[in-house]
Amino acid sequence: MGVVVQNVERADRGVIERLAACGVATVHEAQGRKGLLAAYMRPIFPGARVAASAVTISAPPGDNWMVHVAIEQLQDGDILVLAPTSPCEDGYFGDLLATSALARGCKGLIIDAGVRDVADLTEMKFPVWSKAVSAQGTVKETLGSVNVPVVCAGAYIEAGDVIVADDDGVCVVKRSEAEAVVQKAEARVAAEEEKRTRLAAGELGLDIYGMRERLKEKGLKYV
Amino acid sequence: MGVVVQNVERADRGVIERLAACGVATVHEAQGRKGLLAAYMRPIFPGARVAASAVTISAPPGDNWMVHVAIEQLQDGDILVLAPTSPCEDGYFGDLLATSALARGCKGLIIDAGVRDVADLTEMKFPVWSKAVSAQGTVKETLGSVNVPVVCAGAYIEAGDVIVADDDGVCVVKRSEAEAVVQKAEARVAAEEEKRTRLAAGELGLDIYGMRERLKEKGLKYV
Amino acid sequence: MGVVVQNVERADRGVIERLAACGVATVHEAQGRKGLLAAYMRPIFPGARVAASAVTISAPPGDNWMVHVAIEQLQDGDILVLAPTSPCEDGYFGDLLATSALARGCKGLIIDAGVRDVADLTEMKFPVWSKAVSAQGTVKETLGSVNVPVVCAGAYIEAGDVIVADDDGVCVVKRSEAEAVVQKAEARVAAEEEKRTRLAAGELGLDIYGMRERLKEKGLKYV
Amino acid sequence: MGVVVQNVERADRGVIERLAACGVATVHEAQGRKGLLAAYMRPIFPGARVAASAVTISAPPGDNWMVHVAIEQLQDGDILVLAPTSPCEDGYFGDLLATSALARGCKGLIIDAGVRDVADLTEMKFPVWSKAVSAQGTVKETLGSVNVPVVCAGAYIEAGDVIVADDDGVCVVKRSEAEAVVQKAEARVAAEEEKRTRLAAGELGLDIYGMRERLKEKGLKYV
Amino acid sequence: MGVVVQNVERADRGVIERLAACGVATVHEAQGRKGLLAAYMRPIFPGARVAASAVTISAPPGDNWMVHVAIEQLQDGDILVLAPTSPCEDGYFGDLLATSALARGCKGLIIDAGVRDVADLTEMKFPVWSKAVSAQGTVKETLGSVNVPVVCAGAYIEAGDVIVADDDGVCVVKRSEAEAVVQKAEARVAAEEEKRTRLAAGELGLDIYGMRERLKEKGLKYV
Amino acid sequence: MGVVVQNVERADRGVIERLAACGVATVHEAQGRKGLLAAYMRPIFPGARVAASAVTISAPPGDNWMVHVAIEQLQDGDILVLAPTSPCEDGYFGDLLATSALARGCKGLIIDAGVRDVADLTEMKFPVWSKAVSAQGTVKETLGSVNVPVVCAGAYIEAGDVIVADDDGVCVVKRSEAEAVVQKAEARVAAEEEKRTRLAAGELGLDIYGMRERLKEKGLKYV
Repeated sequence: MGVVVQNVERADRGVIERLAACGVATVHEAQGRKGLLAAYMRPIFPGARVAASAVTISAPPGDNWMVHVAIEQLQDGDILVLAPTSPCEDGYFGDLLATSALARGCKGLIIDAGVRDVADLTEMKFPVWSKAVSAQGTVKETLGSVNVPVVCAGAYIEAGDVIVADDDGVCVVKRSEAEAVVQKAEARVAAEEEKRTRLAAGELGLDIYGMRERLKEKGLKYV
Repeated sequence: MGVVVQNVERADRGVIERLAACGVATVHEAQGRKGLLAAYMRPIFPGARVAASAVTISAPPGDNWMVHVAIEQLQDGDILVLAPTSPCEDGYFGDLLATSALARGCKGLIIDAGVRDVADLTEMKFPVWSKAVSAQGTVKETLGSVNVPVVCAGAYIEAGDVIVADDDGVCVVKRSEAEAVVQKAEARVAAEEEKRTRLAAGELGLDIYGMRERLKEKGLKYV
Repeated sequence: MGVVVQNVERADRGVIERLAACGVATVHEAQGRKGLLAAYMRPIFPGARVAASAVTISAPPGDNWMVHVAIEQLQDGDILVLAPTSPCEDGYFGDLLATSALARGCKGLIIDAGVRDVADLTEMKFPVWSKAVSAQGTVKETLGSVNVPVVCAGAYIEAGDVIVADDDGVCVVKRSEAEAVVQKAEARVAAEEEKRTRLAAGELGLDIYGMRERLKEKGLKYV
Repeated sequence: MGVVVQNVERADRGVIERLAACGVATVHEAQGRKGLLAAYMRPIFPGARVAASAVTISAPPGDNWMVHVAIEQLQDGDILVLAPTSPCEDGYFGDLLATSALARGCKGLIIDAGVRDVADLTEMKFPVWSKAVSAQGTVKETLGSVNVPVVCAGAYIEAGDVIVADDDGVCVVKRSEAEAVVQKAEARVAAEEEKRTRLAAGELGLDIYGMRERLKEKGLKYV
Repeated sequence: MGVVVQNVERADRGVIERLAACGVATVHEAQGRKGLLAAYMRPIFPGARVAASAVTISAPPGDNWMVHVAIEQLQDGDILVLAPTSPCEDGYFGDLLATSALARGCKGLIIDAGVRDVADLTEMKFPVWSKAVSAQGTVKETLGSVNVPVVCAGAYIEAGDVIVADDDGVCVVKRSEAEAVVQKAEARVAAEEEKRTRLAAGELGLDIYGMRERLKEKGLKYV
Repeated sequence: MGVVVQNVERADRGVIERLAACGVATVHEAQGRKGLLAAYMRPIFPGARVAASAVTISAPPGDNWMVHVAIEQLQDGDILVLAPTSPCEDGYFGDLLATSALARGCKGLIIDAGVRDVADLTEMKFPVWSKAVSAQGTVKETLGSVNVPVVCAGAYIEAGDVIVADDDGVCVVKRSEAEAVVQKAEARVAAEEEKRTRLAAGELGLDIYGMRERLKEKGLKYV
């Protein structure tokens, strides 16, 4: 506790943008179904889709002091990722902090806790994926850390990892794997396009994916 | 496990449409307050209102193989109803499956588990009532069954039963009772119309429903 | 049980309107972080912001008889506040009751239970903050009380207290403290305006709030 | 609502006793992994193991009137199974009802709601599997039904079905399948005995079950 | 925040002991089914039964500083009642604090949060009813208050109120009502004794309570 | 997915035993309040206290194939740690697997899912900390991995890390930090012993820890 790591490597900007375009579900599949945050992490408004580099915050329950510290560490294209050290749904973050974060080029907030001023944040189009919405404020009394590894909503995240988030949820891609993952993800997008056309035309997945034989082997009975 | 029932009787198409017009709350009252699915079943977007014949799916946790099998069983005017064999919030269903289901005339999905690609499904106006939204994918390794009776979100549903769903939740009407229920439901709708006018004019429910005497008998005290 | 308190003092109308303008998060801070209802109380549609005088209802689980009784006690500018005597998510309230409440000048409903007909309520712009949405109806068999003190979603509320509610949640302000609270809340709003400008210009909270020294004293290390 | 079914067929007494001896986990496997109640159904004290014929109760939330009606329907060797018509954790049942049920030969209670007087019930060795323990009492105002089919903790149960319950939870066996299930269950018990001996001696499941080849085929890598 | 109320009136010692003898379920009934804490408040070991005067603590999330302050306010026969100002399951209390509290004559702890060292507390026979068990420690940085009114697990509690707790849960009796409540509670205990004997002899509640006629009036049908 | 790491370094045996003696709450404090698993991880029977080296399992939902693979990797003094790849409460583990694990010297199981045969496991004194008890069985169809890093109940765990578990919950100590942590933990135990004596004698924490002045500075008021 009480450490701020300042020099954090980020992934390539172009790679990050391509990950955003693929979306969470595709990226998650592409990296072998790992890195997904818990399904209780929901966007405060629909339609946002971002990818950005994580600036991580480990914060005590009900204490948002470290958010102020973290904002100074933000670079353009980053996203804040806050994990409380024990479960908490207080509103750590509101429109003033969002104003400050936006001024540093921040792309949004992932928080395994609560957020407030959501009407303002929505108007500002500042995307947040959170566990809760709560007007309950926080104090500034106890140190936490910035840019240390955290477990956020069940996923292990290191500073500089890529966060991909949309209406389906939030996924983390390791910085070192971002390039490989985006290639697989884009390949999936391309492959799905053709399937979509065939399915829309009424062809069945049973036939497109050749499932009938294996289903029969496993013993599926039609009655 | 491992059974697909193929010949399922559906309710009368006209009856189904009239049930949709009545809405979930009214239909549920009309059939004596039974058949409601758990309140955690929420629509992925507001405003949808459907009634359709259930094609049921009993699926293992984290395995959506049977969805492909079920889609072949769909007829125009059906709705998919998926119950996992143990609680699971994985994303069993996304935009490719929706494309395929839509091509068969499917009216939507009721799933006591998770769904993904919700931005796409919203754009496609494919309505889903689910327990969760989750990008977590599933495998295709273990058999389940199609069109067998299931318990979905606390309600017992047989293939061919009528599902009514709107912003208030989801309700099942037994196929054999659909005609009787729709008549009672429409009678309620008519009766409510008159009450709405009187209440809007400032008359009190206490008087319209004649409650004052019974409240007094029970001992209600005004102080 | 079985008591209706009829003469309830309300707070000053002007004070109530000024509280609404401040919003829940600010009001909650201004009164020393007390009075917030649990974060599970969510609006049925986004964007509503109200302040109103509480008409409280203590109701048995699954029984909405007392809502009818409470509506008679409503004055223009009031809001209904319902707490069940044991946890319950049934749909106590729907569009007919809302029609009746609106006819009496009611500003909305706070309910630590379920609500139904939410599509209609949304169309009517009748705001509700609830624990759940549920089509499950209720009976009218057992007495409760109206305008007695209740604990609703974890907050102690007396009839005539001011309820402030918006997208961040719901907060109660004691009637006797409303005037003092609104003054502090408006002072906060004014103070935040200046900070917002400075933060938007890129100044850091660390500097504006003079945090650097205290962080250093506490032992924060930059590495 | 408001129906008491009086003539309910039970399964063979000997079969029921043999099911009890097998235990929940084995019986559940033996019938193809169906019929398990939700895992939140927990015993109020450890060590109980029963099998008995279900006398079902469908009860309104917070109303235990039908329990009194059901007790009259009990035969020696029965078990009460209560499902509320909407979720409720009130204490429907306590030591007086247990005294009455015991006098009729009742083997216990399965309740998807709350129970109270648990210290007394434990002393009486009256086993209960419940969703909650709660001192919150109930009223006697609204009818329910007895011996109608219910969905209890996610499982569909008909009067006369066999309930098997132990520290692992609760499982229902259809009356018509009880004999077939007990035979499969006993076969499993016998088969497990031999495996237990080999495993205790240090042999590996990988070898006993011949898993190594299939794991290799699927691509498992040892590094 | 930041207030310690020192002179708190307690209820009569004899009355408190008589309330303990009646138990939670009976006391709760006797006072008209009010004052029960939420059912998630569970004892850390079975069999404890206490009644004592509340010394209340309002504490910030994850901060147990005020527990030390409260212990100085304890008198022989008191019980600590802790409510966090926002939901928290951290372990606020362990064996050292229990040692200190016991030395002041404390009868136990009611905590709408977490507790730790439960093996030691069990050995010391120091009863605790809590929302959670958690080894997660707390800090001592932010003030709370002692002996102010709190909402604890959904119940409104003032310092000096009587807490009754056993395996069924926790109930609060207002200090001013304790004497009246204990009389009603003891009357219930006496009345139940006679019913227990009749029920044990096989008489039915339907007859003892004369329910048959009213059930018939309501329309109950035997088929 | 599909990897078994075979050569895992363990911590020093003596250090592990000393960690067990300190207990979870003390170890967690000693390492700066990190590494605690979520509070929902509860022991299946009270009184167990272990420390052991983690053999980790990443398993698909409802599939326990990898448990068999992991058992071959066990060394005397190890503990199994299972994290499902998406939330699941099925019973992955029962008495046969425990028999096999015990034959390899296994000290217990930490499982962020369900366990069954708990009566047998209790009799065998095989300690388990789990999220749930469930008789719901699992399949053996899909690969997972063994001895890869996992996030289990919110904590990041690598194979060979030391798991400490008792009635307060479960904590992980990094292998590389085990020696340093045990020294701090033992120092805490020693320091607490002296405080316990003073507290038992009636001295107050307020005085022992010298809190009075700082409380006064912060503004605590006695009234």
